[in-house]
Amino acid sequence: MAPSRHDAATPDPVDGAGRVAVVLLSGGLDSAVTLAWMRASGFHCAALSFDYGQRHRVELECAARVARSLGIVDHRVVPVDLRTFGGSALTADIAVPKDRDVVSAHDIPVTYVPARNTIFLAMALGLAEVLEARDLALGVNALDYSGYPDCRPEFVQAFERLANRATKAGVEAIAAGTKGFRIHAPLLHLSKTEIIGLGARLGVDFGLTSSCYDPGVDGAPCGRCDSCQLRAHGFAEAGLRDARAG
Amino acid sequence: MAPSRHDAATPDPVDGAGRVAVVLLSGGLDSAVTLAWMRASGFHCAALSFDYGQRHRVELECAARVARSLGIVDHRVVPVDLRTFGGSALTADIAVPKDRDVVSAHDIPVTYVPARNTIFLAMALGLAEVLEARDLALGVNALDYSGYPDCRPEFVQAFERLANRATKAGVEAIAAGTKGFRIHAPLLHLSKTEIIGLGARLGVDFGLTSSCYDPGVDGAPCGRCDSCQLRAHGFAEAGLRDARAG
Repeated sequence: MAPSRHDAATPDPVDGAGRVAVVLLSGGLDSAVTLAWMRASGFHCAALSFDYGQRHRVELECAARVARSLGIVDHRVVPVDLRTFGGSALTADIAVPKDRDVVSAHDIPVTYVPARNTIFLAMALGLAEVLEARDLALGVNALDYSGYPDCRPEFVQAFERLANRATKAGVEAIAAGTKGFRIHAPLLHLSKTEIIGLGARLGVDFGLTSSCYDPGVDGAPCGRCDSCQLRAHGFAEAGLRDARAG
Repeated sequence: MAPSRHDAATPDPVDGAGRVAVVLLSGGLDSAVTLAWMRASGFHCAALSFDYGQRHRVELECAARVARSLGIVDHRVVPVDLRTFGGSALTADIAVPKDRDVVSAHDIPVTYVPARNTIFLAMALGLAEVLEARDLALGVNALDYSGYPDCRPEFVQAFERLANRATKAGVEAIAAGTKGFRIHAPLLHLSKTEIIGLGARLGVDFGLTSSCYDPGVDGAPCGRCDSCQLRAHGFAEAGLRDARAG
């Protein structure tokens, strides 16, 4: 599974050694840092984004810019309309909560999209198998998003286990006594402040990313949703200026 | 996980007891029998199909007819274009194998679609969570499709485990000491012949289903791909006439 907290502080180019990895890229801050991390860890990265009917669709433009800025040649955007299901403030006509006390909140908020990370990782697994990649990465973290079940270590471990039973590549790897698929979640145990510090060290241009759940028509962040609040809190604690908010 | 082979012979309406289940429905024979099985087991079924760029797209019309014939009101077709990935004879420009000795073949054929059942079950899980359903069903079977890794008991078990770690509903169920999500695969240990016999007992109209991987423009089965061969072999062994082939 994911590298330990210690590993996450210093990517080692020997880890990837030129192997191909599929990285989920939303256009937000966390996935940008994850992509930079995987690149610094020596992986050749293919980035995968989803046009899933999210109200913050501006993040797809951000994803394209982030991919370009990090020199990623293979960036795919897969349309998969999760509005068919509804059930979330991000995909249905449910108001995005504003001005919550997000730092101390620990419930599962209405911005939770049912099974979203499972769906996205399943698609990444399909692409990885086609590209003959055995490494997948995503920018989940369990600290600031403890409310989302699919951002916890238990989820990442269970998906890695599934990946090696669900696929031709995984089954063949296990039969050959090799590791098979590995799910990298380098931010899993980091706070937003630590993620921002890590991204700054890796040269991520935060001004290209968008975290807001409910941006204006011009793409400007609302500044009041959970995600905007967590981002502002992280930048303040890290003592850095947020180019996106500025 | 799935009912045992013994259970699969006689559905018990007490099992479902009016609960909602999400059933994957391809328009093929196996998923039609699975839907009929779940209905006979007392579940209120929502059927879920995917328009994934399959060359045998005629199966979506079959899925709609099967759903209607079984009185299913909630049948959704989600577009998710797996051609973005390619890598399979069903979604890319790779020839569908014909006239193979399919009964004794045990390799993973080029008609394998990378991570397909993982992707489809992930989407079913999202819909189930929105509908407050805890039961999912799919028509995999490990005997005739031993070549597909995502048609084996290990896969179904690993997905059930994941489902209860990936979702708000699963995590809450485990915290409350209840079962959480259950993946039903009633055909898992049946041969094609047994599946056809079961479907006949459950009143499935096989003439509405389509199994061919490479149908003609009129939707007529090719009669020579693995799937056509397995179907013909099953009907012959069951001593029944196939209305679709006739």
